[in-house]
Amino acid sequence: MLAEAAFMAIPLVVCLIYRDRMIDIWSFVITIAALVACGLLISIKAQKDGELFARDGLAIVSLSWIVMSLFGALPFTISGATATYVDSVFETVSGFTTTGASILDGSVIESLGRGILFWRSFTHWIGGMGVLVFVMAILPMSGARNMHIMRAEVPGPEVGKLVSKISKTAKILYGIYFIITLTETVVLWIDPQMSLYDALIHSFGTAGTGGFSNWGSSIGHYTSTYVHVATSIFMLIFGVNFNLYYLLLLRQFRKAFNNLELKVYLAIVGSATLIMTLNIYYSVKQYMGNFGLSLRDSFFQVSSLITTTGYSTADFATWPNLSRCLVVLLMFFGATAGSTGGGFKLSRIIILVKAAGREMKKLIHPHAVSPVRMDKKSVDEATVHGTFVYFVVYASVLLVSFFLLSIDPVSYDTTTSFTAVLSCLNNIGPGLSKVGPTCNFGFFSIPSKILLTVDMLMGRLEIFPVLMLFAPGMWKRRRAMSKARLAKIYAEDDKRLGE
Amino acid sequence: MLAEAAFMAIPLVVCLIYRDRMIDIWSFVITIAALVACGLLISIKAQKDGELFARDGLAIVSLSWIVMSLFGALPFTISGATATYVDSVFETVSGFTTTGASILDGSVIESLGRGILFWRSFTHWIGGMGVLVFVMAILPMSGARNMHIMRAEVPGPEVGKLVSKISKTAKILYGIYFIITLTETVVLWIDPQMSLYDALIHSFGTAGTGGFSNWGSSIGHYTSTYVHVATSIFMLIFGVNFNLYYLLLLRQFRKAFNNLELKVYLAIVGSATLIMTLNIYYSVKQYMGNFGLSLRDSFFQVSSLITTTGYSTADFATWPNLSRCLVVLLMFFGATAGSTGGGFKLSRIIILVKAAGREMKKLIHPHAVSPVRMDKKSVDEATVHGTFVYFVVYASVLLVSFFLLSIDPVSYDTTTSFTAVLSCLNNIGPGLSKVGPTCNFGFFSIPSKILLTVDMLMGRLEIFPVLMLFAPGMWKRRRAMSKARLAKIYAEDDKRLGE
Repeated sequence: MLAEAAFMAIPLVVCLIYRDRMIDIWSFVITIAALVACGLLISIKAQKDGELFARDGLAIVSLSWIVMSLFGALPFTISGATATYVDSVFETVSGFTTTGASILDGSVIESLGRGILFWRSFTHWIGGMGVLVFVMAILPMSGARNMHIMRAEVPGPEVGKLVSKISKTAKILYGIYFIITLTETVVLWIDPQMSLYDALIHSFGTAGTGGFSNWGSSIGHYTSTYVHVATSIFMLIFGVNFNLYYLLLLRQFRKAFNNLELKVYLAIVGSATLIMTLNIYYSVKQYMGNFGLSLRDSFFQVSSLITTTGYSTADFATWPNLSRCLVVLLMFFGATAGSTGGGFKLSRIIILVKAAGREMKKLIHPHAVSPVRMDKKSVDEATVHGTFVYFVVYASVLLVSFFLLSIDPVSYDTTTSFTAVLSCLNNIGPGLSKVGPTCNFGFFSIPSKILLTVDMLMGRLEIFPVLMLFAPGMWKRRRAMSKARLAKIYAEDDKRLGE
Repeated sequence: MLAEAAFMAIPLVVCLIYRDRMIDIWSFVITIAALVACGLLISIKAQKDGELFARDGLAIVSLSWIVMSLFGALPFTISGATATYVDSVFETVSGFTTTGASILDGSVIESLGRGILFWRSFTHWIGGMGVLVFVMAILPMSGARNMHIMRAEVPGPEVGKLVSKISKTAKILYGIYFIITLTETVVLWIDPQMSLYDALIHSFGTAGTGGFSNWGSSIGHYTSTYVHVATSIFMLIFGVNFNLYYLLLLRQFRKAFNNLELKVYLAIVGSATLIMTLNIYYSVKQYMGNFGLSLRDSFFQVSSLITTTGYSTADFATWPNLSRCLVVLLMFFGATAGSTGGGFKLSRIIILVKAAGREMKKLIHPHAVSPVRMDKKSVDEATVHGTFVYFVVYASVLLVSFFLLSIDPVSYDTTTSFTAVLSCLNNIGPGLSKVGPTCNFGFFSIPSKILLTVDMLMGRLEIFPVLMLFAPGMWKRRRAMSKARLAKIYAEDDKRLGE
């Protein structure tokens, strides 16, 4: 909470610079005061001792994200940017989870104060790498125990510790993140259509793979091809596992470029762009005879969707069937593990495909059983099994949400319900049909907005930490047990979870 | 092939009884002659010895189904019922796999000869329980080896041998199948709107959970509520695991009714019917103020979809969002394992949900690990893992087919592509939008029809047997090896596969 208060000081300064309305300034002041007050109160009450176990790590992360969103929503409500508090929370969770789905209409967005819009986009940047990882980077926290928090907050099936010290790993990750964001800001600022403010807003949106813009027509507001291509490339950059950038810093180029997930990522981007370009070039009136424009818009849309950023420069909901089908598939794939991108993650898909292929082989040659291999290392069976389980849980959440959303008395078509859930769960932003790139999520009923908010949180934290809060037995008071015995049990637990 | 020739003699007799056109009669005579000729030729050439291993069982089943469909399609082509041979194969595979998706327009169907229509529906009955199981039931084949064939042809994650002898198990299954079909024929015949011919056609469609009718408007052709309700109930009956009927014969009532999958099946049917009834009662003009009609049509649609029969008495594609969403979910669920129904199968879903729940528990209490239990028996870990793998492979086939289908230059919407694939892969019949209950599959291009034909076969044989035909190494000539060594390797394989 104190970290959030510190982060919120930045939009407050923006408010003051641009002389926003008084109510905007007050909205930040009040929220910061509330955060500091509650934060200090809790830190006084908090137990100082207490070891941190796997399940505690998961619970801390999801509770932190919920609290952070509930407070982060206050400026929107106080300043009157949104109609209800549920809308504010939707918008804030959409920001922190880097979804970028908005309940605000384009014209409303453009009428908001600069400080409020700055906060809206800044939440992407905070959420992209994770606020708790940030805390770990700046606070001298001891012990390998923090690994549990990091594992829960950084997306992907496995988290590689870059260096032995967790706080140093966090520092390196945030350092890389900060530098690439800064580079993008400068690159965008060069364009005459971009002010420094605009460049920052869109760098935050790209860095966190979020997708909020200060314009109703998103990046489409800028006519310059330079902005489109630069944003596409930076979206792709932020969709790459940050560990690979660290390898580049260490000059281990071969290892970085031989990464299988990276290759698959680039291959998908390349082939999807090619298919989409040809498809719209030959069948959408606007693009016929203009190959350059088809390529530019396809590349942008593909990059935006696979990295789950959700910026759009064209209304792909009106494109032909093949392109729309690609949109749905790209939405599902997601970016690479260990990047700021959301979605199911390519490394999981690779593990699943390889494991399924192995089962096929087993049917033909049952006497030749080999482990699933990735990047010359064999993936351990617990990870393979965990990935299967994750897929099933992911699909269940998708189907259950799809069903619950369709209960909404507001009537819409099946494509809308399905892509709205897919978009929120994968932290993308736009979907198809009524939640297409030119639309927004404002028309859903309050219960549906809450459902989609939960889906966004589940997507960002990879489901288990959020589901766990509702699991029976999670909140049962630990029975009076000797500290030594408790420590022994949990230490064993940790070992089983594969610390 | 000889068995198929024997089966085909029945529609030939129907042709003669109803004095169909000469070309219809000839179409059967020629096909039967071709089947007998090829069948005898192969049986002369066939190796008499040779043990049967797991992978041989899978290959035999999928090759048999392909050959059976290619020959079964001939009467449609020769009699001129369909425009192309691909259409005939689509129709035949749709019949054998009990899908019930048709490329024929309603008016065309009603113009066809009675013998041709009889064959079209009779394929459902043959495919429902499996033609190879039938062969096993009538031929004195020795050995537990046939279990591999049975396992590949009877749907579900596990096949329970009812009695120790496999041929006796096959006899019992076909006996139950025959008796229930006969009962339904009599029950339907009682209705004054039903001729014996009509009653037979619709009993075949229900028994195999297929869905072909001799009327363009399917069961909707009959106005009598008696026919609607009787068909609904028989559809549900054929969606139940046949092992439970055997338990009833053995008077083990408690064991039969305590079956978890049965309870889940009935619970889903009950709740889905209730939701759908209320949904259409309050929002579809036609049903407002008529609760009885809402209930009748909802019950029919739910029964038809969950059992993957695909008969329809109402155009649910025009119903509100909640009902359409239920339609999609029911299409996915499928009936129970060991029934004639298709789909993903409820027992698989139960295993997946229980296994995923166990993983959640593991996160909270890693020291309390328990096996997945079903019907008071613990499911062995190989089956659990196999179910996870099946789900992933199933979802992959679904997504890849969805993508391939969208390449079709014929333009349609995303809902059409998705539900067409879902419907074919789950052997249902109708989908939503352009493949809704009042439409047909005739408008697809030839490559799309071939794709959907393969999907239907994959769905019926549960993917692996069909995929295996394309697996590298499957057709490699076995190296010269001593017979003893070969036998030893394969016997070991079988053991690992869990004979």
